[in-house]
Amino acid sequence: MANTIHFTKMHGAGNDYIYVNTLIDMIPDPAKASIEWSKPHFGIGSDGLVLIGRPSEDSVADFSMHIYNADGSEAMMCGNASRCIGKYLYEKGFTKNTRIKLETLSGVKVLNLHLNDENKVGSVTVDMLEPMMTMTEQFTGKHPSLSSIPGAKEGVFVSMGNPHYVIFVDDIKDIDIAEYGKILERDDAFPQRCNIEFAQLVGKDKLRTRVWERGSGITWACGTGACATATAAVISGLTDRKVEIIMDGGTLNIEWNEDDGHIYMTGPAEFVFEGEIQIP
Amino acid sequence: MANTIHFTKMHGAGNDYIYVNTLIDMIPDPAKASIEWSKPHFGIGSDGLVLIGRPSEDSVADFSMHIYNADGSEAMMCGNASRCIGKYLYEKGFTKNTRIKLETLSGVKVLNLHLNDENKVGSVTVDMLEPMMTMTEQFTGKHPSLSSIPGAKEGVFVSMGNPHYVIFVDDIKDIDIAEYGKILERDDAFPQRCNIEFAQLVGKDKLRTRVWERGSGITWACGTGACATATAAVISGLTDRKVEIIMDGGTLNIEWNEDDGHIYMTGPAEFVFEGEIQIP
Repeated sequence: MANTIHFTKMHGAGNDYIYVNTLIDMIPDPAKASIEWSKPHFGIGSDGLVLIGRPSEDSVADFSMHIYNADGSEAMMCGNASRCIGKYLYEKGFTKNTRIKLETLSGVKVLNLHLNDENKVGSVTVDMLEPMMTMTEQFTGKHPSLSSIPGAKEGVFVSMGNPHYVIFVDDIKDIDIAEYGKILERDDAFPQRCNIEFAQLVGKDKLRTRVWERGSGITWACGTGACATATAAVISGLTDRKVEIIMDGGTLNIEWNEDDGHIYMTGPAEFVFEGEIQIP
Repeated sequence: MANTIHFTKMHGAGNDYIYVNTLIDMIPDPAKASIEWSKPHFGIGSDGLVLIGRPSEDSVADFSMHIYNADGSEAMMCGNASRCIGKYLYEKGFTKNTRIKLETLSGVKVLNLHLNDENKVGSVTVDMLEPMMTMTEQFTGKHPSLSSIPGAKEGVFVSMGNPHYVIFVDDIKDIDIAEYGKILERDDAFPQRCNIEFAQLVGKDKLRTRVWERGSGITWACGTGACATATAAVISGLTDRKVEIIMDGGTLNIEWNEDDGHIYMTGPAEFVFEGEIQIP
């Protein structure tokens, strides 16, 4: 049937998308498809739809990705999804390279695939470029009040392209993420609203982090949030430059490289199932 | 691959299950598969797993169904799932009959398929047998207090095999289903706990109903809950014997037949997608 397309369901640390290879299947209206297919119970159920395709003609990239959120809006970039694309392209035979340049709406991202003994992609490292600590259109510089948050020490603003506010706390179990996340997301300090991370120091190389994503609420994991958390911890002198970030849906390993100043994020990518569905 | 099985995702009024045809694919541990596959983000995401198979040797039925909830427990019967099985068997060519006898843990259920102009199953009627208004092991006979529920008039106990308590209210929008459902489910009146329905009369042939399922919370639709609501409304003199029950996930048409005393439930069944997954 002409209107049936093939998709692959994958997740990275619990961040799950429907992946469609546009080299094979075309989707006329991906925003509409993302809305319909992302619905639990009535659709496939997902955080959104990712299209894997050819890069633009003038791009140096090998492949491109377009991400549609569950509400149909287009996202700039998603670290968890880019890792899944690396695994998809290699294991399905679309590339033999373990270094892939991926065109996204926030520039070309470089993926490094780490193969295991069975020639499968065990994990993927994504070059997330340099974090930025000041960005006036995202942060006024005036910190929100944290006095009502149990055991909250200090807050650090970090932009990974998208804005993050990282709050270090004594014990993450004491924190009602939904309660404080909802309020802080819309604090006057953040003209474009803000992603909020709560982080508890576990050791010089380990943090337990829970995430409130602007527009989405509590999520299983957030790639840029993990990068922002590590950056904030290094700046604050709490950790070394290599940090394990333990999120609800899995662990991401972050390195803030001293030589090039880039953040490198390494984490898992998993196939869940293959499917066929009618285009809505 | 030997460990890959084919499944079909279907829903009936938003009640969604993973359907596996055990005439073709075997699942060694369906309880485990239901738990793993029902998870959102990490699995397929569903209300549970339904196995379609041959009936027992001594059964008069044509096919059998086994339903596993998302927590791995086995359910007796599910009206929404049985309609989906009817559509599955006919449209995939496993039967040419529009009358199917289905073996379930609560007896043999008779399905009547209604075909549309394209020879597809537009809706299915399930004979849900006779409702019971008293059943001592499920209901003590002493009604719970409804005085704190806005606009609540009266409560009626109905068993469709599983226990239901139907509360008629002035305006369903005034009711916090989660708040009252949670308390009433475990009221002393119900030794085996109880499903709670809140119903607003819309006309002599129409009710707006929202459901609190014991062990699950708010659900999109509940087949036996719709049957119980219609029964309670007829007993209370509120409606005729043919009633449209409008639930969050869709509409079910219930008829309490005067001749045989059986409840007949008619409603939709929908294919969502086809998939392949590894056995956990």
